[in-house]
Amino acid sequence: MIHPSAIVSPLAQLGDNVQIGPFSIVHADTVIGSGTVIGSHCEIGHPEQSPTSRPLVIGADSHIRSHSVFYAGSTFGAGLVTGHHVTVREGTEAGRNLQIGTLGDIQGHCSIGDYTRFHSNVNIGQHSEIGNFVWIFPYVVLTNDPHPPSDIQLGVTLEDFVAIATMSIILPGVRVGRGALIGAHSSVSKDVVDDTVVAGSPARFVCRAETLKLKNGLSTSAYPWRRHFHRGYPEAVVKEWLAEFS
Amino acid sequence: MIHPSAIVSPLAQLGDNVQIGPFSIVHADTVIGSGTVIGSHCEIGHPEQSPTSRPLVIGADSHIRSHSVFYAGSTFGAGLVTGHHVTVREGTEAGRNLQIGTLGDIQGHCSIGDYTRFHSNVNIGQHSEIGNFVWIFPYVVLTNDPHPPSDIQLGVTLEDFVAIATMSIILPGVRVGRGALIGAHSSVSKDVVDDTVVAGSPARFVCRAETLKLKNGLSTSAYPWRRHFHRGYPEAVVKEWLAEFS
Amino acid sequence: MIHPSAIVSPLAQLGDNVQIGPFSIVHADTVIGSGTVIGSHCEIGHPEQSPTSRPLVIGADSHIRSHSVFYAGSTFGAGLVTGHHVTVREGTEAGRNLQIGTLGDIQGHCSIGDYTRFHSNVNIGQHSEIGNFVWIFPYVVLTNDPHPPSDIQLGVTLEDFVAIATMSIILPGVRVGRGALIGAHSSVSKDVVDDTVVAGSPARFVCRAETLKLKNGLSTSAYPWRRHFHRGYPEAVVKEWLAEFS
Repeated sequence: MIHPSAIVSPLAQLGDNVQIGPFSIVHADTVIGSGTVIGSHCEIGHPEQSPTSRPLVIGADSHIRSHSVFYAGSTFGAGLVTGHHVTVREGTEAGRNLQIGTLGDIQGHCSIGDYTRFHSNVNIGQHSEIGNFVWIFPYVVLTNDPHPPSDIQLGVTLEDFVAIATMSIILPGVRVGRGALIGAHSSVSKDVVDDTVVAGSPARFVCRAETLKLKNGLSTSAYPWRRHFHRGYPEAVVKEWLAEFS
Repeated sequence: MIHPSAIVSPLAQLGDNVQIGPFSIVHADTVIGSGTVIGSHCEIGHPEQSPTSRPLVIGADSHIRSHSVFYAGSTFGAGLVTGHHVTVREGTEAGRNLQIGTLGDIQGHCSIGDYTRFHSNVNIGQHSEIGNFVWIFPYVVLTNDPHPPSDIQLGVTLEDFVAIATMSIILPGVRVGRGALIGAHSSVSKDVVDDTVVAGSPARFVCRAETLKLKNGLSTSAYPWRRHFHRGYPEAVVKEWLAEFS
Repeated sequence: MIHPSAIVSPLAQLGDNVQIGPFSIVHADTVIGSGTVIGSHCEIGHPEQSPTSRPLVIGADSHIRSHSVFYAGSTFGAGLVTGHHVTVREGTEAGRNLQIGTLGDIQGHCSIGDYTRFHSNVNIGQHSEIGNFVWIFPYVVLTNDPHPPSDIQLGVTLEDFVAIATMSIILPGVRVGRGALIGAHSSVSKDVVDDTVVAGSPARFVCRAETLKLKNGLSTSAYPWRRHFHRGYPEAVVKEWLAEFS
């Protein structure tokens, strides 16, 4: 299960049935849950960034794809899934079943809830606080420096069920309310009210999210998306969502 | 020609004079045409995404640069050229002489014509249909979900000779007409007429493409670009283009 | 110090105490200064792009992180620092203590001064001329083709102390004056006056940079940033800056 070309520290703690791909490296300060698969050409538990003293903890049944780099000093719940070429720095505290798409760049010192999904090529700045069931689409940046460069960092807060469409940025210190949708190619400089849609640069109020219709010929509301989109979520969670709207 | 550190499945079908670089992996379901060069640290024919039953086919005289990942279940004509750190998922059907720049992220289930060029860091969403001689510049995203997240996917269509400038997105279901130019930093929400220029967010009509002048001191029209730009195209094709404008 | 799995050409010139990580490749035409650390899975001195006849020169005490690719034919002063998954093409001439963040894509044939910092995921087009103490934030592109695709390349010029915020593009041939700030999510089509702030798409004048206040409760000017931000610069330089504002 550990490819003979992989370099795995004897001090790393690997659960049962962990697979490590060819040309991958697993450092000492690493705890990997059972059933987890690490692809080829990865570097896991990169010790740099001085005495964190904290290990990298990857939950059970996770899947880290090839060419990814995880530093020591972060924790991920069970069922983490990543694309390729992902970089995750120290101080990332994530819940269960996080998905990080290809080319994701998680700068560390941030918190992420359960069942959150990052599509390809997102950049999560330090001090971001991201809730549960959040969706972030490609080329989105969560910033943190209000007057770059400076020593002041104001992280972004994304509440549960937020969706941020492609190529948008959230400016430092902004809070995006529960269930809000950020339209594509937007720059968000002010807090966003729960269950609303904002878009543009700077982003402005567009409508209540529930007024957007699904393009399925049935005029169902497209938001809250948990009303109709259930792929990959646990049965119990979906049941709860369905009850909410019945 | 196959570096001793490379891991090549005995079931992979390699043409004559194929080169495989150090620390690269070639899986079983892979057919690589003669004269093709694979750089270092690549993973070619990645089997994941379940029984595609279809192999990865790379045409002759291709060049895949280092740290690139290609899944099984895609087909590329002869003369494919890529940059580094490229990811290509299953279901990509591409013609001859496709170029994919560094950090390109091709999400699969898409079709791409002949002699099309992607510059660095483009993201091609599933269900995109891309013609011949198309140019896509850095940080362009072809999207597909009209109300993310949802189960509805409306791919983008780019007709022949389209050029999309840097950091633009094309929204789901949009068709960009033959020879159209999308200005930089645009968000395109409506179909674009052949041989026109649109720009802005949302993108609006700017002018007929032929009215843009080349900055060469001669006031030649900059578009259609095939009038003056011929680098890397076959002689026979260029001859045809020159005849069109003589 | 050279990992046994690394492949280092006997023709490469390595200074004292150079470290080369696992699965990395160092080609013949490479000169690496003493004390430099190369991470895992790198390719250094990539010979392609025909007889440059010029080597890759990396100054002393540099640190190139994993999965990075540097071509032959470029020169870097001492103290180069990179993130992961960086690509640097031939013809890049950089001063001392350049920082290139994760996923940086330096297209080569460009010049970069001393103590300049690129955050993650920047794209530096050919013929860019970048001064000293410049800051470029994530997803910024310096373009060069005024009517893509064409054979005409007009590089961007960034003077000393310029800062370009996240997800902005600078259009071909534009000069950004000393100490100017480009706001986030901007598209800059005209030259920018020294010590001013521009923003938007297309970018317009916002204010004199010195009128922006630091969010530190003290109403200090946020710009010029060298007044208050000193992290990572040599003591002598900071002393000079402090004298300038005392």
